Amino acid sequence: MTSQMLNEAQQAPERIAEQLEANAVKVAEVATALRASPPLALLTVARGSSDHASAYVGYHWMAAFKRPVTSVPSSLVNLFGAPQAQPNQWAFAYSQSGQSPDLVKAMQHFSAGGSPTVAWVNVIDSPLAHSVRYALDLHAGPEKSVAATKSYLAQLSAGLHLQSAWLQDAALSTALQGLSGHMRQALHCDWSPCVELLKHVNQLYVLGRGSAWALAQEAALKFKETCGIHAEAFSSAEVMHGPMALVRPGFVVLVLAPCGPAQASALATAQALRERGATVFVASSDSSHISPSRGFGAHLPSVACEHEAAEGVCMMQSFYVMVEALARARGLDPDSPAHLAKVTLTN
Amino acid sequence: MTSQMLNEAQQAPERIAEQLEANAVKVAEVATALRASPPLALLTVARGSSDHASAYVGYHWMAAFKRPVTSVPSSLVNLFGAPQAQPNQWAFAYSQSGQSPDLVKAMQHFSAGGSPTVAWVNVIDSPLAHSVRYALDLHAGPEKSVAATKSYLAQLSAGLHLQSAWLQDAALSTALQGLSGHMRQALHCDWSPCVELLKHVNQLYVLGRGSAWALAQEAALKFKETCGIHAEAFSSAEVMHGPMALVRPGFVVLVLAPCGPAQASALATAQALRERGATVFVASSDSSHISPSRGFGAHLPSVACEHEAAEGVCMMQSFYVMVEALARARGLDPDSPAHLAKVTLTN
Repeated sequence: MTSQMLNEAQQAPERIAEQLEANAVKVAEVATALRASPPLALLTVARGSSDHASAYVGYHWMAAFKRPVTSVPSSLVNLFGAPQAQPNQWAFAYSQSGQSPDLVKAMQHFSAGGSPTVAWVNVIDSPLAHSVRYALDLHAGPEKSVAATKSYLAQLSAGLHLQSAWLQDAALSTALQGLSGHMRQALHCDWSPCVELLKHVNQLYVLGRGSAWALAQEAALKFKETCGIHAEAFSSAEVMHGPMALVRPGFVVLVLAPCGPAQASALATAQALRERGATVFVASSDSSHISPSRGFGAHLPSVACEHEAAEGVCMMQSFYVMVEALARARGLDPDSPAHLAKVTLTN
Repeated sequence: MTSQMLNEAQQAPERIAEQLEANAVKVAEVATALRASPPLALLTVARGSSDHASAYVGYHWMAAFKRPVTSVPSSLVNLFGAPQAQPNQWAFAYSQSGQSPDLVKAMQHFSAGGSPTVAWVNVIDSPLAHSVRYALDLHAGPEKSVAATKSYLAQLSAGLHLQSAWLQDAALSTALQGLSGHMRQALHCDWSPCVELLKHVNQLYVLGRGSAWALAQEAALKFKETCGIHAEAFSSAEVMHGPMALVRPGFVVLVLAPCGPAQASALATAQALRERGATVFVASSDSSHISPSRGFGAHLPSVACEHEAAEGVCMMQSFYVMVEALARARGLDPDSPAHLAKVTLTN
């Protein structure tokens, strides 16, 4: 029997194809407004997987638009009324349910103060959607699995969709046209060596450099949530210092290395960790940097895309299939993670 | 024999008293420039413990100044030339050694583009200091311990010093005048129940809400680095979801709860985790919220200060003394963490 989690992860390619089509007009409207008065700074508000999605998108926005994107803790807005809303400072919220009271309160603060506000939600008739100027539907379809998959992937594509329209990025636009097809391929990438090895592992690191650090954060959360593995995410630029203290021979490290300018540094870290005796998996669309002599499970194949930002989406699509299988291999039910409920109601 | 790490941690109160005095004129100069043309956005660049210090200070700046403060990954600057430098966007670097080439390159990018730039360094004749408009000496004195202590604490006080002068915050200024004395007291706060319990623990969470989340990140790094404990930091607002999957009866959680508006939420999380069977330590200056019936080691005393931001500094002073003792109790040498070297040279 297929778990709800796998079932929903498998729906992502189709849901995202629909999203890109259904949102085209609305996204063009927001993009036009962004071009008409370019923001000096951008803020994001989100929690959990949605915050990881906002971090991935935010990195790509910063790289392309070259203005700061700040992930604002909701405590800052709700306890201190900070940052102040400004007309030249856009605020973006990401949420599956659109219910979290702290996000709603934060976006009301920005909207009331004159900031242009945007929310991506999977439930378009929700308090969060009603608190912003532009509400965009993720079109992920009902998500019942406690562990978010398709809504996370839909947040990535939605943020990149706006980026391509706003900055009129032809390469990204082409990559998004092909994204759904590439994600379908990604469902079949064979990460089974990772499942085999991690069946009995209770601790690992997930690494990425640049925008892939945000992917690593989401992967680490899912390892915890669905598999009970204490996985922690690091930038590959940070791990060689304090966190190295835990890396003994056999310690498992998963390196997420989509193509792009940050890939070389991530691969160099992977190599250095191998030399220290760690068991390192590298996920990438290119296996040429993996020496076959390095043995078991070194390379996890990922789908190549026309743009590195799209490649990250496909990598997480493959990751979700793997982590769901891993949960089952560990005797756990991916649909019933320990202690967890779906909607965040933190005030 | 006293370890280098403890020796240096114990020097912090005296070093910080000297810093606040020695830097008064220079800090007033930077504060005047900040008031003369208030920045629209602020950026920080740092790594490891220094980045944790910048996150703590940045949260307090945002709460008080109400403009976004963005921690910029150096990959973004060095691989993508982003964010662009702007005259109304200040950039701040934090570094003990002032040597890291990636930080130097990033600050050169901002300085060359016309951003006002500031660096706090412990080595004033260093490439990072030479790359900025305003170089401020941390006055922490030579730091030889691989695990940073006094330089981290000196970064906190330095950032708050600028805040008090810039925003002419009398309460914070008073708190800083008393800080060195309070830190001396903090050296003697008894956290030995934590040492006892953690002697044989290999995994834990460190939680904080609001600015204390940044303190939790530094504490988690030190647990890894000096004790080989897989400690991970979370916002107490996030931990009740995915990360809860690991919290089984007896799982250890350390909650850092300095006074302030975010404290109530952190204490509510502590209580919820206790009800799930976790062994929870709460560090705070007030023990009245701790029921004595909750047993072993529930409360870790911390020094009360005139301002919550100063209280966090004292809490970390007490933490460092505890974590050094814990490393020794675990049979480790705090001065020789596994695999680690002092200066970060990532490009």
